[in-house]
Amino acid sequence: MKITVLSGGVGGARFTRGIRAHLRAALPDGAGGTSATVTVVANTGDDMWLHGVRVCPDLDTLMYTLAGVVHEEQGWGRPAESLRVATELAGYGVGGDWFTLGDLDLATHLARTGLLRAGRSLSQVTEHLVRRWDLGVRLLPMSDDEVETHVVVADPDGNERQLHFEEWWVRHRAGLPALRFVQVGLAGATAAPGVLDALLDADVVVLPPSNPVVSVGTILALPGVRATLAATTASVVGISPIVGGAAVRGMAEACLRAIGVETSAAAVARHYGRRDHGGILDAWLMDTVDSAGAAELDAEGWRVEAAPTLMTDVPATARIAARALALAARA
Amino acid sequence: MKITVLSGGVGGARFTRGIRAHLRAALPDGAGGTSATVTVVANTGDDMWLHGVRVCPDLDTLMYTLAGVVHEEQGWGRPAESLRVATELAGYGVGGDWFTLGDLDLATHLARTGLLRAGRSLSQVTEHLVRRWDLGVRLLPMSDDEVETHVVVADPDGNERQLHFEEWWVRHRAGLPALRFVQVGLAGATAAPGVLDALLDADVVVLPPSNPVVSVGTILALPGVRATLAATTASVVGISPIVGGAAVRGMAEACLRAIGVETSAAAVARHYGRRDHGGILDAWLMDTVDSAGAAELDAEGWRVEAAPTLMTDVPATARIAARALALAARA
Repeated sequence: MKITVLSGGVGGARFTRGIRAHLRAALPDGAGGTSATVTVVANTGDDMWLHGVRVCPDLDTLMYTLAGVVHEEQGWGRPAESLRVATELAGYGVGGDWFTLGDLDLATHLARTGLLRAGRSLSQVTEHLVRRWDLGVRLLPMSDDEVETHVVVADPDGNERQLHFEEWWVRHRAGLPALRFVQVGLAGATAAPGVLDALLDADVVVLPPSNPVVSVGTILALPGVRATLAATTASVVGISPIVGGAAVRGMAEACLRAIGVETSAAAVARHYGRRDHGGILDAWLMDTVDSAGAAELDAEGWRVEAAPTLMTDVPATARIAARALALAARA
Repeated sequence: MKITVLSGGVGGARFTRGIRAHLRAALPDGAGGTSATVTVVANTGDDMWLHGVRVCPDLDTLMYTLAGVVHEEQGWGRPAESLRVATELAGYGVGGDWFTLGDLDLATHLARTGLLRAGRSLSQVTEHLVRRWDLGVRLLPMSDDEVETHVVVADPDGNERQLHFEEWWVRHRAGLPALRFVQVGLAGATAAPGVLDALLDADVVVLPPSNPVVSVGTILALPGVRATLAATTASVVGISPIVGGAAVRGMAEACLRAIGVETSAAAVARHYGRRDHGGILDAWLMDTVDSAGAAELDAEGWRVEAAPTLMTDVPATARIAARALALAARA
């Protein structure tokens, strides 16, 4: 059993942890792991250079979550984090204070940056970093090329201005209306080694409840990914990040609005599209509160199911994962 | 009164602090400062990239010392320093653990690296960083070009190997016999803006008790510096870093040995050379314990003085500075 997940940060990381828990119970390898292979392809469009170090928010959240060292309530970063460096850094007046640069987190950025500057690719660096932990899944950046999601906003004087997605998301809490997103470097980027193969060879490709625009959407826009998804024999199943007309987490509404997609589970499914109609999805799992939308999709011929999808804890998430995989397998 | 100091790290920083204290007493500006202008040109040959950030040991030691935030006993780094990032970083197995990367110190490296990566020169970056403090002196890197002092050592199998000076100095405590030093990038480097002017315009140029080989020696080997020192109307005075046949601080002996210079105050003076004989110095201040060597130099026609030179505290250092400046002024 081979599963490939196209993931953003918190939502995708938690869902992947649920997949892993389900597989360890359903397909145990006898050593506490699973005989299944899970590959996670991480969005790298949120990556940025900050104070000269490379920050990869989604890769880090995935690594910390799967390593069991994530700040559980927050969903990202480390527990018992401190800000000794950042507090001192503020004294130099070099900006960037809007991004929380925890000391423990900074160690990851430094390890990564040193390896990158020594000439290693982000794939190689990621492979090195995860060796510290036992993730039980294979973690790949979507690309070794630098890609940056920028947000185009209107200044008060009406002029357009571009800022890095993280600055828009973290500093402005997605509060500046986004006119559109620009994926700097994406059109010329290449999928990282193993990424397209992981889509081709998979039994199931999972679109977890990550941001459909700037997380999953960025991976889908990477050259080669859509064509490979069209060609794969894998079943492609998505789990709605929208429950009851709102994003479960984060500010996906602001992103959907910018691309003209309604904030509803059914609208996101239609945005991804059915694979037999030139889209991405073979199956779509949405929350029971959205059963009306599910009925609509069902009437349109979608393979769809409405079920509890709130990832309240790991066992609950494992149950959602089990249901998504069953839905993917349903002919 | 214009004074220019060619400085390494701890010794030069402490001596410069002594010059500042002396001038504030001798030439007060009425506001707690001095009407004299002190320019410190810092060796940057010890600078290095570590985990992707730029570390400038001598600039940092000068900045911290003159800002009054240096770890006094240690001579470098900050008091109440912590190693939260470095401890976590060690978990990733990326090496570099031999260099103490304190959290507070790291903030300086990050501020610097971010500005450098944004395209600013090291001079501009240094100007930005020191703005945080009130140094009372102008601090210039010797060059905006990257220069790295490497040490050539013999491996046990007899093969030569080059390592960064800091690695040799800090990791190996200068314990691997140095065959020679290689200044990577120095021959093609340009003096930073203001450096040569600060030598030309000075009344006195001071060679503080810094390492004569890898600190002062590196600055002297920077293209343009020797020619400018030959041309300047300033009086050039040096203070011996060797007292009683040993380096007061650090492991300068190992450096002198590598270039075939005896570890004595008189030998270092002869290594620098008299300006009226094609060398660097107009005057040389050495310790009273080395009065025999002073008598020798005096007999050779040097302008030399033997006096207490141990920088036990700031007032003592101010007295040494006063004596050096008086010696420089003596016709």
